Amino acid sequence: MKIQRLAIVGVGLIGGSCALALRAVGAVDRVIGIGRSEANLRRAKDLNIIDDIATNLTQGVANADVIVVATPVGQFPSVFTAIAQNSRADALITDGGSTKRDVVSAARTHLATKLSRFVPAHPIAGAEKTGADAARTELYRGKNVVLTPLPETDADALSGIDEMWRLCGARVSHMTPEEHDGIFAAVSHLPHVLAYALVDMIAARPQQQRLFDYAAGGFRDFTRIASSSPEMWSDICVANRDRLIEEMDQYIAEIQGMRDILAKGDAHAIEALFARARTAREEWLQRREGLV
Amino acid sequence: MKIQRLAIVGVGLIGGSCALALRAVGAVDRVIGIGRSEANLRRAKDLNIIDDIATNLTQGVANADVIVVATPVGQFPSVFTAIAQNSRADALITDGGSTKRDVVSAARTHLATKLSRFVPAHPIAGAEKTGADAARTELYRGKNVVLTPLPETDADALSGIDEMWRLCGARVSHMTPEEHDGIFAAVSHLPHVLAYALVDMIAARPQQQRLFDYAAGGFRDFTRIASSSPEMWSDICVANRDRLIEEMDQYIAEIQGMRDILAKGDAHAIEALFARARTAREEWLQRREGLV
Repeated sequence: MKIQRLAIVGVGLIGGSCALALRAVGAVDRVIGIGRSEANLRRAKDLNIIDDIATNLTQGVANADVIVVATPVGQFPSVFTAIAQNSRADALITDGGSTKRDVVSAARTHLATKLSRFVPAHPIAGAEKTGADAARTELYRGKNVVLTPLPETDADALSGIDEMWRLCGARVSHMTPEEHDGIFAAVSHLPHVLAYALVDMIAARPQQQRLFDYAAGGFRDFTRIASSSPEMWSDICVANRDRLIEEMDQYIAEIQGMRDILAKGDAHAIEALFARARTAREEWLQRREGLV
Repeated sequence: MKIQRLAIVGVGLIGGSCALALRAVGAVDRVIGIGRSEANLRRAKDLNIIDDIATNLTQGVANADVIVVATPVGQFPSVFTAIAQNSRADALITDGGSTKRDVVSAARTHLATKLSRFVPAHPIAGAEKTGADAARTELYRGKNVVLTPLPETDADALSGIDEMWRLCGARVSHMTPEEHDGIFAAVSHLPHVLAYALVDMIAARPQQQRLFDYAAGGFRDFTRIASSSPEMWSDICVANRDRLIEEMDQYIAEIQGMRDILAKGDAHAIEALFARARTAREEWLQRREGLV
């Protein structure tokens, strides 16, 4: 694959790292950065992430053969509209949004005749930092990128975007937007909500300072994801709220069950549950290590 | 402080690290290791953690001026009984148990005339590994050790044990056993239960393998404490179950509240809650860094 002109809409961690990774393997001739902050785009150019700056979408996407939409999901409708009106008919389009049913819905409404060129993507890569400075060539190395093609997606668009993410170093898989949102409600959105909830509960108490004084390394790791962007994560949680609420309800039932076992003082049942969880986690870590 | 004979009952992470730290600052002449596994004691001697091996408590504690009880809490009653019958009248006694009301209760029942020499302690130091090989001289450096003295505790016993833990490098504080168990129910026992519960919930599903395949770094950190010892943590949870159940009930209410906000699709309220939690966590981390 050789991309002549790669347009990155939103040159931050996700978009900037994609450009750097493709540059590193010589898969791209010229990178055009598009965004609302000129300062960030200048920084991206200084960092050699992009070659050219475009401050308006019309001009920025016009001659691109691949377009990566990596803005906050809230901006997707207007970005899609500009792409629909200005991109080449054969351009490949992908994105970096963390939820997929809402992105697909926005694409159906706004991408018009370009819908068949769009391959929705979710790169699973940590996102605690933002802006061009956060971009790293190695961000996607060994990470999962999930593609959720539509029935309308052209076969060559799917294979092209699949190849592009592989060239970034990612492990690429395909599933439906519905399956994607169900899986990530359980393994990502729910843990985020749970971590925010614990910190919020403790912070709301009069003696919070004293409680935090005795919190240690286990608490720090458990709540690390509660330092993620509130804006981004409230968008994700609201966009996927039906599936997330199902997970929250099931989790509440799980805690209720443990509460009842504890109330009975049944140490054996608690130990069996903890042991089962630990074994499942250790097996997951081993499998994960084998994969990376 | 100069300890002539230090008896360590249970030479693992907690007891072994205490011996190493006191040796490192020249605060102890001779360390006697006591335990049920001769292999572990031989290993502790090879590692220069202890000088002498005692396989029975009677002989091991007989001439000690300080005794550190660092076995699983379930063994405390029999260990306390042996200490009551065999230790010197002026020996200082401390422990490393993670809960304190149950330890105090066992001490009241079994330590008899030695109760006033006992200073209950909870060293807050990670405990994912066990055995003599896990011991480290620096384990307690900058870590909290909470002492929960009783009304009966002799003043010289308290000041001696306080000094001993400080010599290990720890930040020592004092509170009642009741306050201790309340604080740690919130910042330690609850997060452990929550992490075990999430892994257990996912592991129980038919499609668990597929879910785990997409779990990433956030999930790994959130569930790290679910790799802790099931035996130790079920003991802790059962010992402190009244306070832990209060915390679980409040947490369930917190999640219910977030669920209701989400069901309304109130992105602003969710973002405000997430932002409040993130700020509280960042402030905690900054304060913590300043302290260490």
